[in-house]
Amino acid sequence: MTDSLSPGATIGILGGGQLGRMLSVAAARLGFKTCIFEPGGDCPASHVANFHFKAEYTDEDALRRFADSVDVITFEFENIPASALDVLERITPVHPGRRALKVSQDRLTEKAFLSDLGLATAPFAAVDDAEDLAEAMAEIGLPAILKTRRFGYDGKGQARIMTAQDAEQALADMNGAAAIYEGFVEFSHEVSVIAARNAAGDVACYDPGENVHDDGILRTTTVPARLTAAQRTDAVLLAAKILNRLKYVGVMGVELFVTAKGLVVNEIAPRVHNSGHWTQSGCAIDQFEQHIRAVTGWPLGDGSRYADVVMENLIGDDMNRLPQIMHEADAALHLYGKAEVKPGRKMGHVNRIMRKPT
Amino acid sequence: MTDSLSPGATIGILGGGQLGRMLSVAAARLGFKTCIFEPGGDCPASHVANFHFKAEYTDEDALRRFADSVDVITFEFENIPASALDVLERITPVHPGRRALKVSQDRLTEKAFLSDLGLATAPFAAVDDAEDLAEAMAEIGLPAILKTRRFGYDGKGQARIMTAQDAEQALADMNGAAAIYEGFVEFSHEVSVIAARNAAGDVACYDPGENVHDDGILRTTTVPARLTAAQRTDAVLLAAKILNRLKYVGVMGVELFVTAKGLVVNEIAPRVHNSGHWTQSGCAIDQFEQHIRAVTGWPLGDGSRYADVVMENLIGDDMNRLPQIMHEADAALHLYGKAEVKPGRKMGHVNRIMRKPT
Repeated sequence: MTDSLSPGATIGILGGGQLGRMLSVAAARLGFKTCIFEPGGDCPASHVANFHFKAEYTDEDALRRFADSVDVITFEFENIPASALDVLERITPVHPGRRALKVSQDRLTEKAFLSDLGLATAPFAAVDDAEDLAEAMAEIGLPAILKTRRFGYDGKGQARIMTAQDAEQALADMNGAAAIYEGFVEFSHEVSVIAARNAAGDVACYDPGENVHDDGILRTTTVPARLTAAQRTDAVLLAAKILNRLKYVGVMGVELFVTAKGLVVNEIAPRVHNSGHWTQSGCAIDQFEQHIRAVTGWPLGDGSRYADVVMENLIGDDMNRLPQIMHEADAALHLYGKAEVKPGRKMGHVNRIMRKPT
Repeated sequence: MTDSLSPGATIGILGGGQLGRMLSVAAARLGFKTCIFEPGGDCPASHVANFHFKAEYTDEDALRRFADSVDVITFEFENIPASALDVLERITPVHPGRRALKVSQDRLTEKAFLSDLGLATAPFAAVDDAEDLAEAMAEIGLPAILKTRRFGYDGKGQARIMTAQDAEQALADMNGAAAIYEGFVEFSHEVSVIAARNAAGDVACYDPGENVHDDGILRTTTVPARLTAAQRTDAVLLAAKILNRLKYVGVMGVELFVTAKGLVVNEIAPRVHNSGHWTQSGCAIDQFEQHIRAVTGWPLGDGSRYADVVMENLIGDDMNRLPQIMHEADAALHLYGKAEVKPGRKMGHVNRIMRKPT
């Protein structure tokens, strides 16, 4: 392995939320130091990191000093402004790279990329105005979902369309933002593959997890997922295809719908993913360490799973259940150190190991 | 559960080595903040902690400010000066308490305490001068070990005595320090129990691990240990007896010799213990989190083990094997972030999960 970073090197992480926090702990476990770039103070990642640049993503001077002080840069969220990347990339390598960010920052580009790879997606059409919308409805039909092309997450920035009237309202709510019209996919359940690739081209995937959402937010992930052997193979192969085409370096979350006609790609996230938190309790090398290994040029873990796990997110008022959860004598609790509980806010998660009857 | 600390509270940790580092990560996982008190700069624990008081244990002003800034105090090593405890205890609770420290800081007090509990130990005698030494040799016989009563660790401050001449030399090497003469125990192997107790009086033990030492330093711990069912029960019961008698709050390591006549207590350590590192890969709640739970008044984990594990310490030049170890695609590597490799220095450890044939 050439060009791998040695313990003692510093990893820069853009974003100071829970994903940055868990990346930071994983980096420390391999002997790396970490430096968080995050506008907010007292952010979850800064609690467990060596350094914290508290600055805006538009602060070019801070970005330059940050890039100068680290050996590699990665991120916990995909909406890094291109202008910030322009500054950073000139000084220090950023992984995953710009191509993956470009593809995943825009739902239309993403769908086009996936279709071009020969992968099944929901039928889709770009919608910039009422004319586009009418055409899309005629072509793709109802029901459907209208989504902003950019900056959507956890179900935000999207509206379900059952009638022509819904469509009109949804377009008005977009306030002129570029949108994408997606036809409904009839699926039985959703799974996701957490996949990794390093610069040497090695690819490793974890066993797919089965996801349950509520109100657009992930509630639980269960491994193993309900999949046939063939579907399991398909899931891993298509994830590898995506990573290889992007010459991707890092961990990616690939969300898939399980349909009667096979797997349909819902979306990709160029980062560690909430649906991969179970790996903390089921694998020797979890998704956070896997990502750190990929971006530092280390060999990858092989993704072996040695336990069945159910991951449950603790969202908002779920924290009221903490007195019960802390009494679970055999559950792995992860809290993110967020001072304030807000509705819909991810406060932590629990990994429960399920023993098979022997 | 009354008087338990809520996430967001700050835990003070005396000592900034690898144990403090892993305690700090465990505390963060439960949403606590951590503050390290450690004279050295750039210490392993400070990399993953919120705050670092860089000050001497004799600096009463720093100790006071430290105690004022945290909600509970614990430690990663047993040789806390009593004068420091005097300052800290007046301001903030310290767990485990003074009694456990007093017992474990002095090998003679420790042995007397264990004997008084009815537990088997090596035969022992206090040695302050040549006369004591002659008496001890006559009574206990040879071979034996002469150890300093205080401040010994990893085989330091002890000499094996095979002949009367060895004994003379060993006494001279003590430079007048109070010593203890311990008879040899014929044992087949050594195991240790990692036990925990909280203020509510709940006790939980992990499955005993089997330890292999080299040159006085732990090399590997393997679970399960080679023990009969009766020995396993004995080990857990005697550990609980020790914790209860001390009204102990926290995790303790209890080292045991396995002999033909049963278990003999070698020594106790009032802290998380190197031989408990395997719990990171074999239990939902590891020894570090267990300790944090105990000192913050949380319910304890039950110690359930869901995997067979071999823990290997990486000591000094073992780091030369890092290129091979990083290629082990299914091994959990933990490096401590120490800048300099020194002979005998603990640099990290690896937990390898052993699968049973199905």
